[in-house]
Amino acid sequence: MRPSTIREILKLTQRSQVISFAGGLPAPELFPIEALRQAADAVLRERGREALQYSATEGYLPLRSWVAERLGASAEQVQIVSGSQQALDLIAKVLCDPGDAVAVAAPTYMGALRAFDAYEVRYLSVATDDAGIIPEALASALQARPKLLYLIPNFDNPTGATLPLARREAIVALARRYGVPIVEDDPYGELRFEGEALPSLYQLAPELVLYVGSFSKIMAPGFRLGWVVANAEALALLLRAKQAADLHTPITTQMIACELLQGGMAAQLAQLRAHYRQQRDRMLNALAQHCPSDIHWTRPRGGMFVWLTLPAPLDATALAYAALERSVAYVPGEAFFADSSGKNYLRLSYSVATPTQINQGVARLGELFTEALAQVA
Amino acid sequence: MRPSTIREILKLTQRSQVISFAGGLPAPELFPIEALRQAADAVLRERGREALQYSATEGYLPLRSWVAERLGASAEQVQIVSGSQQALDLIAKVLCDPGDAVAVAAPTYMGALRAFDAYEVRYLSVATDDAGIIPEALASALQARPKLLYLIPNFDNPTGATLPLARREAIVALARRYGVPIVEDDPYGELRFEGEALPSLYQLAPELVLYVGSFSKIMAPGFRLGWVVANAEALALLLRAKQAADLHTPITTQMIACELLQGGMAAQLAQLRAHYRQQRDRMLNALAQHCPSDIHWTRPRGGMFVWLTLPAPLDATALAYAALERSVAYVPGEAFFADSSGKNYLRLSYSVATPTQINQGVARLGELFTEALAQVA
Repeated sequence: MRPSTIREILKLTQRSQVISFAGGLPAPELFPIEALRQAADAVLRERGREALQYSATEGYLPLRSWVAERLGASAEQVQIVSGSQQALDLIAKVLCDPGDAVAVAAPTYMGALRAFDAYEVRYLSVATDDAGIIPEALASALQARPKLLYLIPNFDNPTGATLPLARREAIVALARRYGVPIVEDDPYGELRFEGEALPSLYQLAPELVLYVGSFSKIMAPGFRLGWVVANAEALALLLRAKQAADLHTPITTQMIACELLQGGMAAQLAQLRAHYRQQRDRMLNALAQHCPSDIHWTRPRGGMFVWLTLPAPLDATALAYAALERSVAYVPGEAFFADSSGKNYLRLSYSVATPTQINQGVARLGELFTEALAQVA
Repeated sequence: MRPSTIREILKLTQRSQVISFAGGLPAPELFPIEALRQAADAVLRERGREALQYSATEGYLPLRSWVAERLGASAEQVQIVSGSQQALDLIAKVLCDPGDAVAVAAPTYMGALRAFDAYEVRYLSVATDDAGIIPEALASALQARPKLLYLIPNFDNPTGATLPLARREAIVALARRYGVPIVEDDPYGELRFEGEALPSLYQLAPELVLYVGSFSKIMAPGFRLGWVVANAEALALLLRAKQAADLHTPITTQMIACELLQGGMAAQLAQLRAHYRQQRDRMLNALAQHCPSDIHWTRPRGGMFVWLTLPAPLDATALAYAALERSVAYVPGEAFFADSSGKNYLRLSYSVATPTQINQGVARLGELFTEALAQVA
């Protein structure tokens, strides 16, 4: 296991005065704190013994039902996990042996790479563009029959890209042809603030897809609640692995979350979407205003991230330390590549910065990149 | 990974009317429900944003400090985990490769076997008697240089045995001689209701021992809060594995637990000890009254379990199904042996049964065993 670049950067980021576009933290001012306080109060008052005892490895049945309903699945098809990170860990544990190949988008979520690394897999990196994984590139990767394909179809971390329907269909067809299970990681799916929702890969191919979801971005990451929806065979393996890993996910937080869900999520989700759209607009405006024209960036329709491509001679990792000297933090793109290539990319998160911070921080980055470009010119 | 015998038995146990001595559930009537409700209320009212956001992989610092103080360690030496089961999983993940040897007491906690199984280890089973692991047997096992030695020194699960000081010293000396790390699992240590507390193996050899503890038996298992205290090198490996496995343990429950601990645990622990002592006495009395004289059982000085040895021709697994027909449940001893030997043992838990259930249930078992003995005589 190799050290985590983001960990190093995030440590430096915690210095006061640093404007951070690095973390993927949800906006804490939108946590439903009072509603969760009331839910916790009700659960512990009315069902305290159940909420504090050992419980089922599969998870709390009403919570599994809530998850199932949204996907048109049944509660029996849902495994509750301790955050979607645990889903990735358990999936690799049951599907992968050392030396096995795993196909991933290049770039992809670094937490997934760290989860898979622990099982000593090797990676088949699949090229992407602004619309995500390129089907032609995927075809050649899947010919090598990897044990799984991992991707984030909605508002990708780190690129912000969303797979169009035609690509979803093409990816599912390829995975079917080569018999490769797909791990569909969808933490941001509910945070769409532009355009129409698209079918999940799970909905297109339920027999082939392990669908991974999370309450971290729509309720509270501190609860560490996520889920996997999968076929019966995969679920049986995950259940045994989950039991060996931590017996079960805390029932207390599962019941509190479920109590909150009884009140509906519509208002909470509307608030989140409006907030992140506004934040995205602020960041895109600042980028347009301050960034040299030969830098390219994505335009996310949901989620939390913008992905920047610097002209090839620039090294975003070296520049990350220079940016920290100007009190601005981002995550260098190489952290998201299985082979640590991608030195000229970087990820910006607009989730927690204030309007002033977004403008000032992007202005400083724009200056830095302009200077760096002048030096290599 | 093989199916869990206890899982099968526990499923049958859930039928109504069954008197269960099978589960190791703590007594729910002693959960500090109201105190936890108030603690949750205070945490979410006063520090809601912190309690619901992502947090440190190491765990909540005040909670780490509380754990450290009890062992005379420093907070930096403590890793908070999602129940002690996760500690066992992560320890095996960082210390063991497929085919590696792990030394375990025979019998030992089946959850540890399931955690280690996932890493495809092989077991060196170490013989025990009513005082736990026998040092002479351990010496020959450690000569094979296993990657770790796993044991439960206090009120063992399943035997109820407690290692005397001389054995603790002998075990530590052997582990030092052969350079074998010890995983000291101590979920029941605070539940001593008889005799004086003995030093932990960690206190005898902090450089060699990974000390694993839990709030499950003294506060609430539903929170899934445990910890590992270990040397810096082991902690660095565990931290990385923990980050890959689930990022961090829920901060919400960590902060609530910590809030509760501010009020002290003395009254809660006194109540638990008095309760379990009374329950133990009820079970030992019932065994003396109803069991044939050629059955042997242990006399625990803490914890939740009594371990029975049936005369060799009897098969406790077959009898477990016969017992269920008489509406009494226990866990067959073979579940606790790495090699599934130990067919003539069984574990009884006195933690949750009522006084009437203990008397009736043990009476039915006594009848069953008497009849079975008559058949083989």
